[in-house]
Amino acid sequence: MSGPAAATAGRGVDPSFDPRTGKQHGSIPHTAPEHVAEILRRAQGAAPRIAGTSPATREAWLAAIAEALSAHEDELVHLAGEETGLGADRLRGELAKCVASTVFYGAVAAEGSYLDASTEGIGGESTLSGWNIPVGPVAVFGASNFPFGFGVCGHDVASALAAGCPVIVKAHPAHPRLSVRLAELVSDALDRAGAPVGSYALVVGFDAGLQLVDAAEITAVAFTGSQGGGMALVARAAARGVPVFAEMGTVNPVFVTTDAAADSAGIAAGFVGSFTLGAGQFCTKPGLLFAPAGAGIFDAVRAQLGQVARVPLLTAGIARGYRTGLAGLARAAGVTTAEAATAVATGAATDTPVELTDGYGVDPQVFLVRLEDFHPGSRLLEECFGPVALICEYDDAAGALDALARLQPSLVASVFTGGPGDPESAEVVARLLGQVGRVALNAWPTGVATSWSMQHGGPWPSTSRSDATSVGAGALDRFVRPVAVQNADPAHLPAALHPDNPWRIPRRIDGRLTLPTG
Amino acid sequence: MSGPAAATAGRGVDPSFDPRTGKQHGSIPHTAPEHVAEILRRAQGAAPRIAGTSPATREAWLAAIAEALSAHEDELVHLAGEETGLGADRLRGELAKCVASTVFYGAVAAEGSYLDASTEGIGGESTLSGWNIPVGPVAVFGASNFPFGFGVCGHDVASALAAGCPVIVKAHPAHPRLSVRLAELVSDALDRAGAPVGSYALVVGFDAGLQLVDAAEITAVAFTGSQGGGMALVARAAARGVPVFAEMGTVNPVFVTTDAAADSAGIAAGFVGSFTLGAGQFCTKPGLLFAPAGAGIFDAVRAQLGQVARVPLLTAGIARGYRTGLAGLARAAGVTTAEAATAVATGAATDTPVELTDGYGVDPQVFLVRLEDFHPGSRLLEECFGPVALICEYDDAAGALDALARLQPSLVASVFTGGPGDPESAEVVARLLGQVGRVALNAWPTGVATSWSMQHGGPWPSTSRSDATSVGAGALDRFVRPVAVQNADPAHLPAALHPDNPWRIPRRIDGRLTLPTG
Repeated sequence: MSGPAAATAGRGVDPSFDPRTGKQHGSIPHTAPEHVAEILRRAQGAAPRIAGTSPATREAWLAAIAEALSAHEDELVHLAGEETGLGADRLRGELAKCVASTVFYGAVAAEGSYLDASTEGIGGESTLSGWNIPVGPVAVFGASNFPFGFGVCGHDVASALAAGCPVIVKAHPAHPRLSVRLAELVSDALDRAGAPVGSYALVVGFDAGLQLVDAAEITAVAFTGSQGGGMALVARAAARGVPVFAEMGTVNPVFVTTDAAADSAGIAAGFVGSFTLGAGQFCTKPGLLFAPAGAGIFDAVRAQLGQVARVPLLTAGIARGYRTGLAGLARAAGVTTAEAATAVATGAATDTPVELTDGYGVDPQVFLVRLEDFHPGSRLLEECFGPVALICEYDDAAGALDALARLQPSLVASVFTGGPGDPESAEVVARLLGQVGRVALNAWPTGVATSWSMQHGGPWPSTSRSDATSVGAGALDRFVRPVAVQNADPAHLPAALHPDNPWRIPRRIDGRLTLPTG
Repeated sequence: MSGPAAATAGRGVDPSFDPRTGKQHGSIPHTAPEHVAEILRRAQGAAPRIAGTSPATREAWLAAIAEALSAHEDELVHLAGEETGLGADRLRGELAKCVASTVFYGAVAAEGSYLDASTEGIGGESTLSGWNIPVGPVAVFGASNFPFGFGVCGHDVASALAAGCPVIVKAHPAHPRLSVRLAELVSDALDRAGAPVGSYALVVGFDAGLQLVDAAEITAVAFTGSQGGGMALVARAAARGVPVFAEMGTVNPVFVTTDAAADSAGIAAGFVGSFTLGAGQFCTKPGLLFAPAGAGIFDAVRAQLGQVARVPLLTAGIARGYRTGLAGLARAAGVTTAEAATAVATGAATDTPVELTDGYGVDPQVFLVRLEDFHPGSRLLEECFGPVALICEYDDAAGALDALARLQPSLVASVFTGGPGDPESAEVVARLLGQVGRVALNAWPTGVATSWSMQHGGPWPSTSRSDATSVGAGALDRFVRPVAVQNADPAHLPAALHPDNPWRIPRRIDGRLTLPTG
């Protein structure tokens, strides 16, 4: 290599694989340490300039990003298909949601509640004014399973920019070519929209990621991925007090009441659709369903599952992990001969490394488990990434709820009820709210709306910060911190607190929340 | 011992010392592990019952606590004086502030913004509703230096109860008898006001504190004290994802502009008053003042300091730490012979353990330091607890600001300016906001208002969580987490989201913030 590329490339590369065939198509060089350092310096330089812009300005930057992504839909969906094996329909849908959410975070910034602007007299001539400021450069570690939603673009990037922070993304190794192309589009859109140099950058490679986490310039980290990866980042950043907002995976249980089980075919079809969506590679995948015994839901699910096509997983590592995970679940569940045979047929019952000869394709799987299998330390209490789910047919709803309470806390749980009059509904919802961030009634957990009320984050260890969300209006709150100035010269207060309210935002004046007039 | 006390007491005791004499007056037994476990079980049992109360109900509980504390003012001030050596005026003032802030947190709960209640349609028939729920039992580790403000009662206890959480306080060993008496008053007030059994309890002893931090029942920890203590709790609780809101101490710099230095006598008098307030044992103590050379502020401060009486520190440990700290500062500052002699006279220049023969009395002290002393690793960059401060007379304001940027981030900084027209003011405030939580203009940092706009928390390591505050309306936010319910039966939503808004709180309806009418 020669020229600029050589100057910025490190020693390794992220190879690009097609999960449908397992074949490599090119690679992307790792970012050299000195180039990462330069990117960090630029981000730090940009931080006060971005912090000084109005929310409406940043709303326009985000609109420019959204427009650029939309304009390249076909190219991006094709490229993402080559590196993820997720179908074109799913990818087109994910990109459309990414575009819409990018616009949404701009609107949340412009609405201005996230600033928590407040001013008041505190006795005598003294005044106190408080508001939120951007924390500074944010490092984003994206996910393998949402190439548009969580990574180079999407929720973390858009909400951090909306809050006024520069962003540096660490490319996920599962889709390096897509990452580079997306980053070009985002960078160009920001440049054309007038964002400062240093507002956004991409780095490639594991070492570059560690360099970000350790860098004095980085003030917050957003991560979406496995518990192992998230916890490692949390521990590493803790040494210098940097918050890591890690959104990790857990089991996401579903509870079907006796009344609801009357529609066993509908429940079964919906469950199969949800836990095999995107090849079961959703952090909101329902991994476990409790249904009343005798409704025949397990048999209905198994029958439905026969119709689901073999699908490629995202990476060779995920495919191997899935097969090993299946074997563990089969043992923990004490599966009957028939399921065990199926598990063996997909390589699940062997712990030896699995040869992946025709891409990363796997078959979806379901296991019947018993309440007594949910003992402390059981493999059943933890997530298995991929298109597998457990079904527990309970005789005793109270026993099922107790088993559910032994699961790791989750991002989300679903409850299927017979409607408003269902006598079980209220208690199930109340108990589940104690151990998840969101309860979906008569809806599958995989549907996540980007909206004002959304909570996409649950108690530890489903996330590292149960007070945070990576989807919805609250996503901005991760990237600001409150400050107060006592006896400020009004001319030195931010526009958020100017007497004539130029940003037209909600503010608290002398303790009273006020809305913009007109 | 026999009877109930024996059943609940552990093996050790917290002795009670009078700092004015160094003499012991009784002791309080440590809480036995099995009793701590019982307290934890009761708190967990109370949690859902408290969570189900209205903010107005909890406002009434807090009013009852405030009333009980007020009714026992003389007794409490006398007892606190015996164990802290802080004067009656200071203690009376602190208790009055504690009473007012207890009432304030109730009002914040009743106002209801902290609930972040929101509901909206998300397409088709689907709805999403979000709000904040109490996290559950909270452990509070109080401070030695604010016996009423941060501990058995005060900011952490009142804001956690206001948010709907049971509270278990670990008594500070510096005032065990006061702790027990305060806890009796708080418990009795809560009982009479109708709060559930288990809403509040006190435990005594180091081991009891560790048991709280490790307990599955505890969902959040609030701590006020030293960096060492706070960081140890943060690390210990991290293993199970429990947030520790630690408010620790740092230097809290003061910057005097050229215009402001014209009033050198006023600045000097105010500075001495602030850094010797409560014998310099404030987490907001101004530990370092930058003033323009030639204004004579150091000489003015030294002259004023001669008028300040010798005062007892809170504990023997703090008194010894102060004298050792003085010696370190004297060396780091390269003090002139005169100051060194004073330091030696107060025991500062020796590293051998200091005999405390007449209580924990020490003399206040000030050192002149130079910009070049603020090199990385310098002792001058960290807090020294007690009535000591540093003054740096700068020739070059830019150099002073650079030195200031090398300090650990602080809770608060003060800036003294010549008024709105002062050309230096805006840049100094802007730079300081990057490394503190609050900037006080023409006011000393030791004044902290309990109000809606207050931010009492700064970047790590001045606190463990720069997004949090332990004083002001935001204090409640530490003890709630957001949840969402999709397609909720309206009858199962909390009152916060009932259509007729029975709690009369601000809510977001379909993305639009609305205020209660009428």
